[in-house]
Amino acid sequence: MEESAINVLKRAVVLDQERRFDQAIVCYEQGIGLLLKAIKGFTDNVKKERYRTKINEYMGRAEKLKQAMIKLKNAEKFNKVIQIEEDSIGHNYSTIFGDLLDITLTEVEIDDPYIRSNHQIINFIRFCALLHKSDANVRKIILNTSCENDENKQSQQKQAFSAISNNLLQNNIELVVSYSKTLHDREIRFNNGWIVKIGRGLDYFKNVPKFSLGFYDYDLRPCHETTINIFHAKHVKGADG
Amino acid sequence: MEESAINVLKRAVVLDQERRFDQAIVCYEQGIGLLLKAIKGFTDNVKKERYRTKINEYMGRAEKLKQAMIKLKNAEKFNKVIQIEEDSIGHNYSTIFGDLLDITLTEVEIDDPYIRSNHQIINFIRFCALLHKSDANVRKIILNTSCENDENKQSQQKQAFSAISNNLLQNNIELVVSYSKTLHDREIRFNNGWIVKIGRGLDYFKNVPKFSLGFYDYDLRPCHETTINIFHAKHVKGADG
Repeated sequence: MEESAINVLKRAVVLDQERRFDQAIVCYEQGIGLLLKAIKGFTDNVKKERYRTKINEYMGRAEKLKQAMIKLKNAEKFNKVIQIEEDSIGHNYSTIFGDLLDITLTEVEIDDPYIRSNHQIINFIRFCALLHKSDANVRKIILNTSCENDENKQSQQKQAFSAISNNLLQNNIELVVSYSKTLHDREIRFNNGWIVKIGRGLDYFKNVPKFSLGFYDYDLRPCHETTINIFHAKHVKGADG
Repeated sequence: MEESAINVLKRAVVLDQERRFDQAIVCYEQGIGLLLKAIKGFTDNVKKERYRTKINEYMGRAEKLKQAMIKLKNAEKFNKVIQIEEDSIGHNYSTIFGDLLDITLTEVEIDDPYIRSNHQIINFIRFCALLHKSDANVRKIILNTSCENDENKQSQQKQAFSAISNNLLQNNIELVVSYSKTLHDREIRFNNGWIVKIGRGLDYFKNVPKFSLGFYDYDLRPCHETTINIFHAKHVKGADG
């Protein structure tokens, strides 16, 4: 009984890592049931306690996965459009992206040709900070952007990414930056299936004076007019689809 | 009936402005009751509709006041201590002060001798931004701090406060700054009765490199060790008390 419980739970973890969440949930539940039966016969209390801790861990993970799956299945049918009005406030990254950052998210890919100048790089850092402190468990961020033309600026841009990359690594997140000369579209793809298109990319906040409330608090930063489309990969068909 | 309803409601608004909230709630409720009876007899639909809108407004205000009073009466008995550990994160101003910023708050006074250098002034702006976007209706911020000694720096400090003051005015908040050479204690007093003492004042965040997640997001900024005491003015006795 003990051995088969362990086997089923190992299988659950592998399925979880492979992002086959529905199957992982089934295996977690089966494995937990088997393990509960098995420890009833145990006389070794230390071993019993160790397994109980493990059971709690697996139950927590399975429960969170279940909730994420229910939320996702309810949400993924809908395309969402957020229309940001010129000079409106209250469109911080957490307001726009917060709902998409669930426990199953581990990787984010950003196409945005304009993560180049200082304020755009700050936008990117703020976006990374949101990913890091969310419920998600982001381990990899891929950024596709373009390079500054001026040699001096290009060196500054690369130094900034190098510093960000080091800081992210300290937080167990890998950053991969690649440069393209032809990239134009802005799109952010989350590996839990969500795709976000913003006309202006991350750079939809207006510039404000240094000593104003909105300079540090993006909740209070006025925005440029832009449209944000959010939809799920399940509902996207390729030309050959 | 209509006239007495209006009189009672006017009285409610005055009591509300005078911060006699318990009495204001009673008058709001009486006035709303009278007005509801009065409009039953009205034949003028435009007038009826106008009064209905007014009734909704007053009901909303009375309900919010009631909730704030209940919350306050439950909370004000307790002194709260927050112990911030060296290098810990998650102590953004919203986490510390968020619960104190209710609908009855209109004025905040800050004693903090070190709102002088650039990063301290940024702290102050971030604190003001939190006040502004909270449930409170802050209309006045009083800052008691000390002046830079160096003439050049002093001029920069005053320019910064002038810019902040202009920006706050645009948001209907008056800023009053006064300078003291003897001020030492750090204390923030909210006119809904809350008093907050922080050993280090607003300046309890550590410096971090420019291109790191915590530079822009104070949720992720490591802190200095410090103790925060929160208590209510009702439970403070003066030497003569």
